[in-house]
Amino acid sequence: MIIVMKPNTSKNIIEDFIERLQNKGLIVHTDFGDKYCILGLIGDTTAIDPEQIQAHDAVEKVMVVQEPFKKANRLFHPEDSVIKIGNGSIGGGKLSVIAGPCSVESEDQIVSIAQDVKQAGASFLRGGAFKPRTSPYSFQGMELEGLELLKIAREKTGLPIVTELMGTKMLDKFVEDVDVIQIGARNMQNFELLKELGKIDKPILLKRGLSATIEELLMSAEYIMAGGNENVILCERGIRTYETYTRNTLDLSAIPAIKRQSHLPIIIDPSHAAGMWWMVEPLSKAAVAAGADGLIIEVHNDPANAKCDGQQSIKPKKFKSLMDSLKEIEKFKWSFDINEIGF
Amino acid sequence: MIIVMKPNTSKNIIEDFIERLQNKGLIVHTDFGDKYCILGLIGDTTAIDPEQIQAHDAVEKVMVVQEPFKKANRLFHPEDSVIKIGNGSIGGGKLSVIAGPCSVESEDQIVSIAQDVKQAGASFLRGGAFKPRTSPYSFQGMELEGLELLKIAREKTGLPIVTELMGTKMLDKFVEDVDVIQIGARNMQNFELLKELGKIDKPILLKRGLSATIEELLMSAEYIMAGGNENVILCERGIRTYETYTRNTLDLSAIPAIKRQSHLPIIIDPSHAAGMWWMVEPLSKAAVAAGADGLIIEVHNDPANAKCDGQQSIKPKKFKSLMDSLKEIEKFKWSFDINEIGF
Amino acid sequence: MIIVMKPNTSKNIIEDFIERLQNKGLIVHTDFGDKYCILGLIGDTTAIDPEQIQAHDAVEKVMVVQEPFKKANRLFHPEDSVIKIGNGSIGGGKLSVIAGPCSVESEDQIVSIAQDVKQAGASFLRGGAFKPRTSPYSFQGMELEGLELLKIAREKTGLPIVTELMGTKMLDKFVEDVDVIQIGARNMQNFELLKELGKIDKPILLKRGLSATIEELLMSAEYIMAGGNENVILCERGIRTYETYTRNTLDLSAIPAIKRQSHLPIIIDPSHAAGMWWMVEPLSKAAVAAGADGLIIEVHNDPANAKCDGQQSIKPKKFKSLMDSLKEIEKFKWSFDINEIGF
Amino acid sequence: MIIVMKPNTSKNIIEDFIERLQNKGLIVHTDFGDKYCILGLIGDTTAIDPEQIQAHDAVEKVMVVQEPFKKANRLFHPEDSVIKIGNGSIGGGKLSVIAGPCSVESEDQIVSIAQDVKQAGASFLRGGAFKPRTSPYSFQGMELEGLELLKIAREKTGLPIVTELMGTKMLDKFVEDVDVIQIGARNMQNFELLKELGKIDKPILLKRGLSATIEELLMSAEYIMAGGNENVILCERGIRTYETYTRNTLDLSAIPAIKRQSHLPIIIDPSHAAGMWWMVEPLSKAAVAAGADGLIIEVHNDPANAKCDGQQSIKPKKFKSLMDSLKEIEKFKWSFDINEIGF
Repeated sequence: MIIVMKPNTSKNIIEDFIERLQNKGLIVHTDFGDKYCILGLIGDTTAIDPEQIQAHDAVEKVMVVQEPFKKANRLFHPEDSVIKIGNGSIGGGKLSVIAGPCSVESEDQIVSIAQDVKQAGASFLRGGAFKPRTSPYSFQGMELEGLELLKIAREKTGLPIVTELMGTKMLDKFVEDVDVIQIGARNMQNFELLKELGKIDKPILLKRGLSATIEELLMSAEYIMAGGNENVILCERGIRTYETYTRNTLDLSAIPAIKRQSHLPIIIDPSHAAGMWWMVEPLSKAAVAAGADGLIIEVHNDPANAKCDGQQSIKPKKFKSLMDSLKEIEKFKWSFDINEIGF
Repeated sequence: MIIVMKPNTSKNIIEDFIERLQNKGLIVHTDFGDKYCILGLIGDTTAIDPEQIQAHDAVEKVMVVQEPFKKANRLFHPEDSVIKIGNGSIGGGKLSVIAGPCSVESEDQIVSIAQDVKQAGASFLRGGAFKPRTSPYSFQGMELEGLELLKIAREKTGLPIVTELMGTKMLDKFVEDVDVIQIGARNMQNFELLKELGKIDKPILLKRGLSATIEELLMSAEYIMAGGNENVILCERGIRTYETYTRNTLDLSAIPAIKRQSHLPIIIDPSHAAGMWWMVEPLSKAAVAAGADGLIIEVHNDPANAKCDGQQSIKPKKFKSLMDSLKEIEKFKWSFDINEIGF
Repeated sequence: MIIVMKPNTSKNIIEDFIERLQNKGLIVHTDFGDKYCILGLIGDTTAIDPEQIQAHDAVEKVMVVQEPFKKANRLFHPEDSVIKIGNGSIGGGKLSVIAGPCSVESEDQIVSIAQDVKQAGASFLRGGAFKPRTSPYSFQGMELEGLELLKIAREKTGLPIVTELMGTKMLDKFVEDVDVIQIGARNMQNFELLKELGKIDKPILLKRGLSATIEELLMSAEYIMAGGNENVILCERGIRTYETYTRNTLDLSAIPAIKRQSHLPIIIDPSHAAGMWWMVEPLSKAAVAAGADGLIIEVHNDPANAKCDGQQSIKPKKFKSLMDSLKEIEKFKWSFDINEIGF
Repeated sequence: MIIVMKPNTSKNIIEDFIERLQNKGLIVHTDFGDKYCILGLIGDTTAIDPEQIQAHDAVEKVMVVQEPFKKANRLFHPEDSVIKIGNGSIGGGKLSVIAGPCSVESEDQIVSIAQDVKQAGASFLRGGAFKPRTSPYSFQGMELEGLELLKIAREKTGLPIVTELMGTKMLDKFVEDVDVIQIGARNMQNFELLKELGKIDKPILLKRGLSATIEELLMSAEYIMAGGNENVILCERGIRTYETYTRNTLDLSAIPAIKRQSHLPIIIDPSHAAGMWWMVEPLSKAAVAAGADGLIIEVHNDPANAKCDGQQSIKPKKFKSLMDSLKEIEKFKWSFDINEIGF
């Protein structure tokens, strides 16, 4: 961390300030220019809050040199993390696809879609049992009944299940029943929940908040990892911008950005990003070309009658042909090279 | 709700679609132009999901005419709501000020600040016991001990206490100990929590999410109200934009916007918005002039040593002089006039 | 255009309002519900300003059904436009790559880079002679001398040249010397300039403004086309969001969005979007996979000593290997199918 | 400027890099920590491009300590600038109000509104003769005829006129006829135009771009000032965010932010910000309370029939009562105190 003191700050004040920093176990280098005095802090600065430093009257600016995350940081863990899920895994170079409906609606529906997406090449089944809805009057999911139907679909297809947890209340049930616990964008900074997730060892699919920076996403992963659970998969699902044609703006530059800063896998959700089914194909292809570790795609056999998000679901046939193209694009995709990009 | 069908949609498809809407209890008016067929839905459309409608192949566009919130809607409750808190209240025209430190640090600190802000004219004491922090390595608050100290400060000053709840885990404790439960920006769409808040009758201070629209803020209030708790106070605290000079951009147009759409009180948090203590004065004055029902301001007797957010806290003396000006500005503030602005 | 009148508006006022609309040559359908009266306007509504309609006291909401652009609209021109440039072209399915340095610095530099990018497969040479710089103290380009050097590079390689025009002052010179006139993001709504561009027939590369919506980009294209010049190539180059890791956020969903709404070619600028050279490869691959008609890439033989934007330039060797991959990805890219996506 | 070199950069590379910086006339302080080498640059760094520095392979991060603007910087010009306009002025503590219609429509209209706003206390008359419109099919203003009508209104009321210049074409005419040349948000970074404005001495009202940072606004002012014209008045008119209820989000924190960084006057445009007439009153009151040097307000005697922006115009009677309140609020407004806020 580098601290620039205000011009004309007295030596006494600077010395007093330095002493306080040293008391926190840091080595402080000072550099007196003709106008600004600059302090360089050496040591573990992750526990130092830059905003607290900024609160000091004599501080002009603070620059954080080292990222504030440790366990999620590629600097201390240069190889890609691979998250084990059942017999499969996510991360480490090969493309993994999670597919299924927005929400579980019936046994027939979820089993039939599970079979379709498996056949097309998906490795995991998604499906919402508990649904986060902007309106209290909208369909809130089949809840526990939905969870049972997901388990039936898993039994029939062998596909591990990925489904969203809405808070701490159902955590134990999810640990028991589910293969990957999905944390939605709106809960990315639900710190009470993140702390609980750190205590289990179930893989967590952590979605980027609607307006979360990449650093904040990594800090939320750090919460879980600092608690002891290092099985975190990150997910970019579109960010909120001023553009209204699409529901959100998919930020594919998050893939290389995260690859450089972190060893965690990063997957892309093209369905929620655009909010329109016909954009799923171009955005999926783009995500794979840009080096995503995986995709999570909404597939529905009857989108027009889906209980939620039908407008962004593709049909099984479309999904099949998409999967075929993705396998080809994957061969030429970008991949992170630590020697080329370095630190 | 108005639905525009795609050009060249066959009559059969349109008729089939209309029947489905009628089955949901709606009256459907149709208007066949030369190119587009337009459907107008009459009845309670709050349970109809516009995105589900949009999923239909033959639908070109959907326009929502009526806001999707009912209990929070001024249309059905023209008078301002006044939320009772102890002997005091928030809403209904007079200015209420909540003040105190970012976090409770010691008995001396919280009691002394409480006395200072009371003397300056504050009606409520704020202070964090449980703190939402971006980093797991930052100070997380004094937790239960902090809550006890807040109660001591309340006893010594008579000021009702406002403090943040981080999830459902501590809800019962907060219902017992706290006067107003604050829900932070990051939990505005923690739906599991919102549902629980609907079951109690404690006043809720609901902060606008970092990138929540005004409609989404009102929909989160609706969640709480739909559950049975109508004691909701809204709070604008700055939204995330591209500007980096300030931490967030305070959106004061949210005051008139909310006043027109809802009967709920709306207060402003100038401290978190800008993230700089010297902006608290201009933004507080602006908020009062624009018709805010109240302010929530961070006051600290030693900002440079505060455990969090010192850079955005003002000192008690500054707070006192600010309060004096605010009382004068209040006399000329904007206030909503239903006859002038109407619906 | 659909207009919803406020509830309880008197019939007299509505009739008077309808008459005014009819006087503008429109047919007005009316639909009286129990609460809202809805007007549907039939005819050419592009000349009707929705904000002016909204200004009427009795109007609740306005919904625009038809896009406000005509000449750029795919609805009236279903086939892709192909823009001819010298012996080459942009648009219509095949990938076109424009490459070269941020700014022209010397004859050696521009000729050598031109030869390198041509050999790697680029079809056009880019290079700034007049540079838009945020600071008046930054290098402003070699100006007319730079233009001469570009012409030499064209002569030596046969590559048509693409370079930025900063205003109307140099327009005649550019018409004479340049193959494609580039209009930068900051000038996308420089309407005086757009009107002049409509009077010539030189191809225009129109970059999306930093915070322009897709519709606004198409409206700026419409300005040029309405003036008589239909040779417009659109360019997405990253939009401004709250994320600070990248300079801008590349919006690849703009590709399918524009393909559906317009017949104009759309190319991608991965260099300016991210502002970091090592993101050019993943973003270029993603752009091609998502169906872009072309790319504009900054290539420099000595980025660390470039006079501008060196941090986002790749070296010729990197460019060559990238071009090889792009040709493979192109085979599996998304392409717009009017029968599948329709209107 | 502070430069952090990448860890493990060889001493040779660092020394070579330092030499290059020294060759630009800078003194370079170095500080070798255990991991990072840090360089502090002393001297005039405004001509150094941080992005160019960033392009060097061995550079990890760059922090700019001093703002990149000089002539607009309060650091070198501590007193408020007061811009003289005819017998009046803008800046320096007293509130100045510019009022009038969006566009000039007829002699009757502009003269009558001019008389009304003068009587209510406005000091300047606004009115568009050349209009920037998103659509080429919208009313583009009365152009030269409109300019003549503004001159008639000035003659009849004595109010200096403020009107928008769209490019360099009409510059000479505006210098001759107009009192303040307004540069719209879309032209804030039209650098060709800014350079021409630097050569005249007419006061310039420079509007902040739709997504311009405060620093970029000040850099555009610097362009004009660096050319020789120091008569610049800044204007905040709402920035583009994700919120759709209002047209733009008025950023009132720009007032204190600009006051701290610059000596130039800053005025607020509440009409364009919200895009709704009934928000003009609360936002105007807020702007004055927050310390704005002035306001620019759209007033129209017949908004429903205005040729543009009627929905955001208030009537003369409303304007009069607003002016009366503003005079009271002004007495308690925030004002910048260099001793309190310092640098």
